[in-house]
Amino acid sequence: MDEWAFIDWVKIYLERSGRDERVVTGVGDDMAVVRAGRETLLLGSDMLVEGVHFDLGGTSPEQVGRKALGVCLSDCAAMAGRPLAALVSLSKPRVMSMSVVERVYHGLARMARDFGCTIVGGDTCGGSSQLVIDVSLLGVADGVEPVLRSGAKAGDWLYVTGRLGGSILGRHTDFVPRVQEGRWLAEKLPVHAMIDLSDGLSTDVGHVCRASGVAAEFDEARLVDAASEAARTLADRDGRSVLEHVLNDGEDFELLAAIGAEPEELPELPGNLALRAVGRMVEGEGAWIVRADGNRNALRSGGYKHF
Amino acid sequence: MDEWAFIDWVKIYLERSGRDERVVTGVGDDMAVVRAGRETLLLGSDMLVEGVHFDLGGTSPEQVGRKALGVCLSDCAAMAGRPLAALVSLSKPRVMSMSVVERVYHGLARMARDFGCTIVGGDTCGGSSQLVIDVSLLGVADGVEPVLRSGAKAGDWLYVTGRLGGSILGRHTDFVPRVQEGRWLAEKLPVHAMIDLSDGLSTDVGHVCRASGVAAEFDEARLVDAASEAARTLADRDGRSVLEHVLNDGEDFELLAAIGAEPEELPELPGNLALRAVGRMVEGEGAWIVRADGNRNALRSGGYKHF
Repeated sequence: MDEWAFIDWVKIYLERSGRDERVVTGVGDDMAVVRAGRETLLLGSDMLVEGVHFDLGGTSPEQVGRKALGVCLSDCAAMAGRPLAALVSLSKPRVMSMSVVERVYHGLARMARDFGCTIVGGDTCGGSSQLVIDVSLLGVADGVEPVLRSGAKAGDWLYVTGRLGGSILGRHTDFVPRVQEGRWLAEKLPVHAMIDLSDGLSTDVGHVCRASGVAAEFDEARLVDAASEAARTLADRDGRSVLEHVLNDGEDFELLAAIGAEPEELPELPGNLALRAVGRMVEGEGAWIVRADGNRNALRSGGYKHF
Repeated sequence: MDEWAFIDWVKIYLERSGRDERVVTGVGDDMAVVRAGRETLLLGSDMLVEGVHFDLGGTSPEQVGRKALGVCLSDCAAMAGRPLAALVSLSKPRVMSMSVVERVYHGLARMARDFGCTIVGGDTCGGSSQLVIDVSLLGVADGVEPVLRSGAKAGDWLYVTGRLGGSILGRHTDFVPRVQEGRWLAEKLPVHAMIDLSDGLSTDVGHVCRASGVAAEFDEARLVDAASEAARTLADRDGRSVLEHVLNDGEDFELLAAIGAEPEELPELPGNLALRAVGRMVEGEGAWIVRADGNRNALRSGGYKHF
């Protein structure tokens, strides 16, 4: 059973277990949406395991801490939420020096401060073979209705907030979650669906298509234009195409948004926001790529799998 | 550095890192208290690591699931909160069969249903050497101001909600979190401080004393009266006294409450609530035990340490 099958099993199992009327969206979006009184809350968590998601040989403890919170903040960005508070649960191997753990917390606290959220608690334990960090984030809608994966409509344009691919060369531990950008988009534009790109564009777009019941059609030339410098460097090194890196590399931590506005209709963007149109939502199923020669090929999910 | 030193380090570090005005209570109580608009929210998480907190030889996967959520619910009980939603992050060892993980989720979902909360999301990953489960719980105050550890006053009586000690003989995987009881107490009585007994009475009472700036004085005879059958069985087996088991065994998951009401003043209790007076809060520092012979001895923390 691979990770998707496992996630699907959990989703189906938990939905069968019953849902409170206060739970608007449960398992299966970037974060869950829960109503508490008049407030709309967002809840999500991400677990990082040493040797699976990071390696302290190549990544500093501060970077691990930043990333542990950053992946949650990226989910919050995709819901257009405002981060409020985080919980950090950490299991420390007996053989790991306390100074490493302290540096992880430095990274966590710095990231929290950068995004105006507070680490309010969590759990600490020891005795695991690997360093395990689970961060849970509470976000608030704060006047902006959460953007789900399920609202994309045929005719929407597909936009990404930055350049894609080659994250492994550095960006995967050094990204800035698009929290401000996500809120700006949802406040100013008809954003019908949004997701953060963590598993690779070709995989993540599938989540939007299935949840929304429409298809995605990417434009090859626009995708190549959206490639990062790192994607080009990698392509030179490994002989795979720039396009493959854009489509399949994981951990971009950019936003993919289905917006009911043409590229020419967009208002002036804030300085930190580079919004690129890469395709459109169309009637049908699955994801497609329209080549420079006009051919239309089915896009298979080739993203990162860590299970 | 032992666990308490580590927790203290985290607490001091995170408090220095700054706190939002919306965070009423951060690291250091059973759960954090956060205001979101007009709502008062409770947030807490507990991480269980295979081989440290449980062993699948002696504990069924369903019990592990129940316990993983149960320890969070017990924290919520100690705040007099109402559980609303939970996140479950789970890392599955490669060699572990999926059916074991499914049974863990059965236990989690059953416990969630029993307490009217919904598992709304989380994370799933694989590749750890041990099964690791981190549960985060969102609770709401829902009209009952959260009860902290810090409000105990000299003159309060100390009560426990059930019998103590010997949890290792079964109760530690089979307890019912005192959520209903915690809310009933806070609604009906002047509960000034509350904590759940997870690390052993002698340790947990110290948290209340330090947070409240008062001392606790237990009555030996009342403590022995509060012993569970399991504590007596263990004492017969291992030659340690019943009192030692009551004071130092961990994982009772009962509530310890400092209440401004004499035992004779208590209203009629609901059928499920067995409230026992075991001592009083007094001026001073630390925890004390008044022996049957009238001697007053300092009580040292002898609770469970899993770090």
